[in-house]
Amino acid sequence: MSDLSQFLIPEGFQFGAATAGLKKSGRPDFALIVAGEPACAAAAFTANRVTAAPLTVDKENLRATGGFVRVVAINAGNANCAAGEAGLAAARSTCEAAAEVFGCDPEEVFPSSTGIIGVPLPAEKLIAVLPALATALGSEFDHFQKAAQAILTTDTVEKTAFARLDAKGPDGAEREVCIAAFCKGAGMIHPQLVPHATMLVYILTDAAIEPADLQVYLNQAIELSFNRISVDGDTSTNDTVLLLASGASGAPIGPGNREFAHALTHVCTSLARQVVADGEGITHVVELHIDGAASDADALRIAKAIAHSPLVKTAWAGNDPNWGRLMAAIGYSGAQIDPNCIDIRFGDLQICRDGGRAAEFGEAAAHAYISQAEFSISIQLHQGTGSCVFWTTDLTVEYVHINADYST
Amino acid sequence: MSDLSQFLIPEGFQFGAATAGLKKSGRPDFALIVAGEPACAAAAFTANRVTAAPLTVDKENLRATGGFVRVVAINAGNANCAAGEAGLAAARSTCEAAAEVFGCDPEEVFPSSTGIIGVPLPAEKLIAVLPALATALGSEFDHFQKAAQAILTTDTVEKTAFARLDAKGPDGAEREVCIAAFCKGAGMIHPQLVPHATMLVYILTDAAIEPADLQVYLNQAIELSFNRISVDGDTSTNDTVLLLASGASGAPIGPGNREFAHALTHVCTSLARQVVADGEGITHVVELHIDGAASDADALRIAKAIAHSPLVKTAWAGNDPNWGRLMAAIGYSGAQIDPNCIDIRFGDLQICRDGGRAAEFGEAAAHAYISQAEFSISIQLHQGTGSCVFWTTDLTVEYVHINADYST
Repeated sequence: MSDLSQFLIPEGFQFGAATAGLKKSGRPDFALIVAGEPACAAAAFTANRVTAAPLTVDKENLRATGGFVRVVAINAGNANCAAGEAGLAAARSTCEAAAEVFGCDPEEVFPSSTGIIGVPLPAEKLIAVLPALATALGSEFDHFQKAAQAILTTDTVEKTAFARLDAKGPDGAEREVCIAAFCKGAGMIHPQLVPHATMLVYILTDAAIEPADLQVYLNQAIELSFNRISVDGDTSTNDTVLLLASGASGAPIGPGNREFAHALTHVCTSLARQVVADGEGITHVVELHIDGAASDADALRIAKAIAHSPLVKTAWAGNDPNWGRLMAAIGYSGAQIDPNCIDIRFGDLQICRDGGRAAEFGEAAAHAYISQAEFSISIQLHQGTGSCVFWTTDLTVEYVHINADYST
Repeated sequence: MSDLSQFLIPEGFQFGAATAGLKKSGRPDFALIVAGEPACAAAAFTANRVTAAPLTVDKENLRATGGFVRVVAINAGNANCAAGEAGLAAARSTCEAAAEVFGCDPEEVFPSSTGIIGVPLPAEKLIAVLPALATALGSEFDHFQKAAQAILTTDTVEKTAFARLDAKGPDGAEREVCIAAFCKGAGMIHPQLVPHATMLVYILTDAAIEPADLQVYLNQAIELSFNRISVDGDTSTNDTVLLLASGASGAPIGPGNREFAHALTHVCTSLARQVVADGEGITHVVELHIDGAASDADALRIAKAIAHSPLVKTAWAGNDPNWGRLMAAIGYSGAQIDPNCIDIRFGDLQICRDGGRAAEFGEAAAHAYISQAEFSISIQLHQGTGSCVFWTTDLTVEYVHINADYST
């Protein structure tokens, strides 16, 4: 496993992690991704109107460079959000210190933060460990994995995904293109990315792709992955997805390359599902299939209403096949529906037909089906051709414990 | 207390309750309100597009009678929702049976149901107890209270409210007008009433008011009470508010009577707060004051985003003054905001100023303040003059237990 993954780390990037002292646990909390040459960058950020300071700086920097990044500097343990001018100053001073260490412009640095909101970020702790961290970078799988671990907060496992494809180089010869990505996120998960993430996602490829094309590929992949998940319906102030292309494979990827788009979507969908599966306190991962909606937007409205309903989510936590709560959520979703035309299946079990309990409904079978760690619910609305697939979770006692624990 | 309340039961109504066998607990689950003469009626129903069968029948009946009701028949233990034609037939057969017993038209009967969704209502159980129930009606406080108790589901206490005012009769003499109301509701509470409730509310007055005027008074009172509360953000399929005016006081109330409007709003606000205070598993009632929004609608968007945020609500459950979660919810509410112009107070304690932690913020004091069973949070946005007051709750381990408990 370690050998295979190592093979798939894209060329052109180095990774490292250090303990700056932001996490109370004393674990590593500062990660770097360093590109050998400025890498083409595409990014997406939260739609939340309260955004963390690093996101403001990231947007400024990407504009200033025209979409190029040398250094990604990610801290966990502090979101650097709702910290006013001091927050912006902390993000910028981190950029300046990294630029000095790596010999680039401060605008070529992409800072990210995740953790508690409303507490000023002590940038001096990050800056203090930068020189030592710079000497310990590497391009092996182990380095990649340490970076992936350092950015975690309430996550219980690191989340990584890989893909590879063949692409022709300028000389017509086949070259291998790699995509590798890591991310964090377990709570405050309902990404609403613009253009279409407390989720931080870093996707790296050694393909050679122009920034404008890279952004199109990223937007398409996000729409079917990170924008289709919810743990608790809380959209974070810090969500960020960054895609960097080093070009080191020597294989140029133009617009409309289906194989690359497919590989990128695969990586994003894998990470999105890992985020849901590591959702705070969850015991079930639920895949929702909404079909027959008046529009795709209506299908998504219904999926989100279900995914955000405390009554639906607590029923799942109890393995309770209470499909009436699904009906209520469908009804208040705002989507165009006819209550008498709604069919619901749990896996292959018909639960509801024409808006009422199906004749073949069996409570014991339904209960057994949704007692599984992962299950699917299909809803057919008979209104049109709109559809979506969405991943969400149950709401458990453990979620409340995780988020209510407070020691005076 | 019992004597005072007795005094305030409006003239012209009788009440009763029976055990029809719908509640597993074996407690009374069927209540009647019977008006001596057809009472003027105004009603409001859930905005959920999946609505229970009795709501469909209620709307038909009110249209048929022009807004008059003789008998209100309320069962708990079964919502009669998502039950197709069988559900409508069950509601209608209850109306027919009640009409026969009380000598009125079936259209003068107003059925209501609350309980589990998706299980056909056994109307024959209600019909079987109707004759005995009809002989046991009364107009005393005890009868009123028994009806209020019979409609409860996961509620822990009955919810009643009373008001009185003086109004001039046609002869110029002062007459006393009474308003008395009872309701149920603890979970699936986020009423969105049209025209502006698993909440069932019955408000009775002996004022003489035309149906059109009665509806205006009801709409105004609802907008400031039931439409300003949320326990879990789930909008029910069965929410119903019914206001009946018997006219038995002999005091006519025309349009624009401030004293009556004030008394009615007082009763509705009292019940709305009682619903929140009895919210499933809650340990805190939180009063939100949103001010300085760009519009009242924006103020309400922010209040609802906060009231529906699992992260905010679990922090409250833990007495955790984590105001960053409030900032995140404000940010994703969709309201127009400037993150750098947001001030937050917990009671009189300044927590956040200009979007960042207030200089005088003290964690211990903030923690102590929100450890109280009831507290208020004030948010000033500095965008305009929009405002609202909203009542909500924390989200506790007990809420999850209540709604996840499922025995195979």
